[in-house]
Amino acid sequence: MSRSRAGLPLALTCGEPAGIGPDVTIAAWLRRREARLPPFHVIGDPALLARRAAQLGHEIQIVRVSPETTIAAFDDGLPVVDLEMPMIGHPGRLDAADAGAVVASIERAVDEVREGRAAAVVTNPIHKHALYSAGFAHPGHTEFLGALADRFAPPPDGRAWRPIMMLAGPDLRTVPVTVHVALARAAAELSTETIVATARIVAADLVARFAIPAPRLVIAGLNPHAGEDGAMGREDLEVIRPAVERLVAEGIDARGPLPADTLFHARARATYDAALCMYHDQALIPVKTLAFDETVNVTLGLPFVRTSPDHGTALDIAGTGRAHPGSLIAALRMAARMSGAAA
Amino acid sequence: MSRSRAGLPLALTCGEPAGIGPDVTIAAWLRRREARLPPFHVIGDPALLARRAAQLGHEIQIVRVSPETTIAAFDDGLPVVDLEMPMIGHPGRLDAADAGAVVASIERAVDEVREGRAAAVVTNPIHKHALYSAGFAHPGHTEFLGALADRFAPPPDGRAWRPIMMLAGPDLRTVPVTVHVALARAAAELSTETIVATARIVAADLVARFAIPAPRLVIAGLNPHAGEDGAMGREDLEVIRPAVERLVAEGIDARGPLPADTLFHARARATYDAALCMYHDQALIPVKTLAFDETVNVTLGLPFVRTSPDHGTALDIAGTGRAHPGSLIAALRMAARMSGAAA
Repeated sequence: MSRSRAGLPLALTCGEPAGIGPDVTIAAWLRRREARLPPFHVIGDPALLARRAAQLGHEIQIVRVSPETTIAAFDDGLPVVDLEMPMIGHPGRLDAADAGAVVASIERAVDEVREGRAAAVVTNPIHKHALYSAGFAHPGHTEFLGALADRFAPPPDGRAWRPIMMLAGPDLRTVPVTVHVALARAAAELSTETIVATARIVAADLVARFAIPAPRLVIAGLNPHAGEDGAMGREDLEVIRPAVERLVAEGIDARGPLPADTLFHARARATYDAALCMYHDQALIPVKTLAFDETVNVTLGLPFVRTSPDHGTALDIAGTGRAHPGSLIAALRMAARMSGAAA
Repeated sequence: MSRSRAGLPLALTCGEPAGIGPDVTIAAWLRRREARLPPFHVIGDPALLARRAAQLGHEIQIVRVSPETTIAAFDDGLPVVDLEMPMIGHPGRLDAADAGAVVASIERAVDEVREGRAAAVVTNPIHKHALYSAGFAHPGHTEFLGALADRFAPPPDGRAWRPIMMLAGPDLRTVPVTVHVALARAAAELSTETIVATARIVAADLVARFAIPAPRLVIAGLNPHAGEDGAMGREDLEVIRPAVERLVAEGIDARGPLPADTLFHARARATYDAALCMYHDQALIPVKTLAFDETVNVTLGLPFVRTSPDHGTALDIAGTGRAHPGSLIAALRMAARMSGAAA
């Protein structure tokens, strides 16, 4: 990431074409001026986007571009890098024949950043099960991006790239340390090592990607009242507290474990730059409660910037015009800020 | 509760005198006009309140009352029903000698409601460990109030009174089905029976106490994405869904299990009157994130109305003037509305 990304467009993946990805892409582009959107191009099938725009009643230009011509084209038409893989993308109806193009779009976006042709990757939502049936072998979107990171040089410390999910709203950033596991397993999966490794990446990326010179982290407790000195669970004392002590010893500004229920109101939020949470809903509830339409899913720990709207494919409302582009707009704007792209 | 409570004052317990209970009580009374507070009296030691007021720099009248004279006295002085048990209540320093008066204040408040002399009980925070050392044998405040409910006639259905904690903010009510247990145990403690029993009480009290004729309940899932059809935990399918089905069969308007992370934003909140949550932080995070200073702890399932500020004794700031009376003010106003007291 030493090269400057100024003057480069964002690469937006098409996502699952049967879902609302095309809808929110078109809706976001239509608001490009009032939302002050950074220039982006979609990587996908121009014909699919033209069909969806017509279904939604929008008369817009779809412009075939190469990444180098995106910025010139952006004001007048929706720029599309043509994958030359026609998509079916019938709203609401998954088709395994589209899986190859969905995956190729993600790979191409990462390659564009690696080649210095795009500033950052923004991804539309995918439907994992549709991809699994076509042979996709990764647990999810983020893990696939983690695998693609191996196409880049290894990180300075010689470890492997390790994708970390952050949820970012207008005034709250949270990071779940355990993510897609049953709640009963989250406590067992939690380890001092994982908390420390996650916090290191978060602290480093708050400096590198968010221009926060001395990031302040808080670490949420796992149990009610952070366990109340062991009266309700030992993990806060035996797993989380040692992690905080190690982080502090390394010079990272970390506090905790703190009771999670009093960690996310306005006065508390003003005291830190990111909150490490111990499980999925502990991280996602406060961010989405505060700013449902503006929450962005950011992947830290990668050699490229990646953001994503924080919603799913919403197959049931694809093609209806009811999909809200707020989260995609926020994801595009955040990717531009994080990467130093043209804004 | 068939008797009218109109024209009756609220009975406010003194709570732990070394904590911020006296501070927020005095601060709330000082704002009685602009906050349109219903008349209340404190049950405790008039001398302690006079000392704390002086420490905080307030020149106020402390007026000894019986419940029958509270309303006439309320405008000019802080009414106190004298327990005739002098309290030490040095700010920030617990003293086991005060435990008896703390407990007696709670008992007296409940008795005043039972005798038709007060409309509802509002409790200041207690410090459980200070009471334990003096022989208090209940797991907490709410359980003690549940035991005192046995001084009333049994409920119409012949079962025992069963206290249920609800957190209520200006536009969100949540109820944790499991409460003060380690997170790893919450999943194991959850049962279809407990969810159903809790939801019945919530639905009945939303009618009786909140004047909502046809309450709409949502039931949060336990696991991320409500388990995603069993891919992340079986409890949503095997424990929660059967509870929802039984509630619907009984004619209760209940939906779920729903993913908890998308359940608390403004558009979602508009679709229900209360959310049943599966564990402590799932219920408390959204309410406190949205309205930290106005969240009220309400006990449902009792033969009397009881509310409480949703904060602890905050020993570290007692006597400093830094305690915020917002939650106590909200608790007093809610108790008056719920009980039909003088407002």
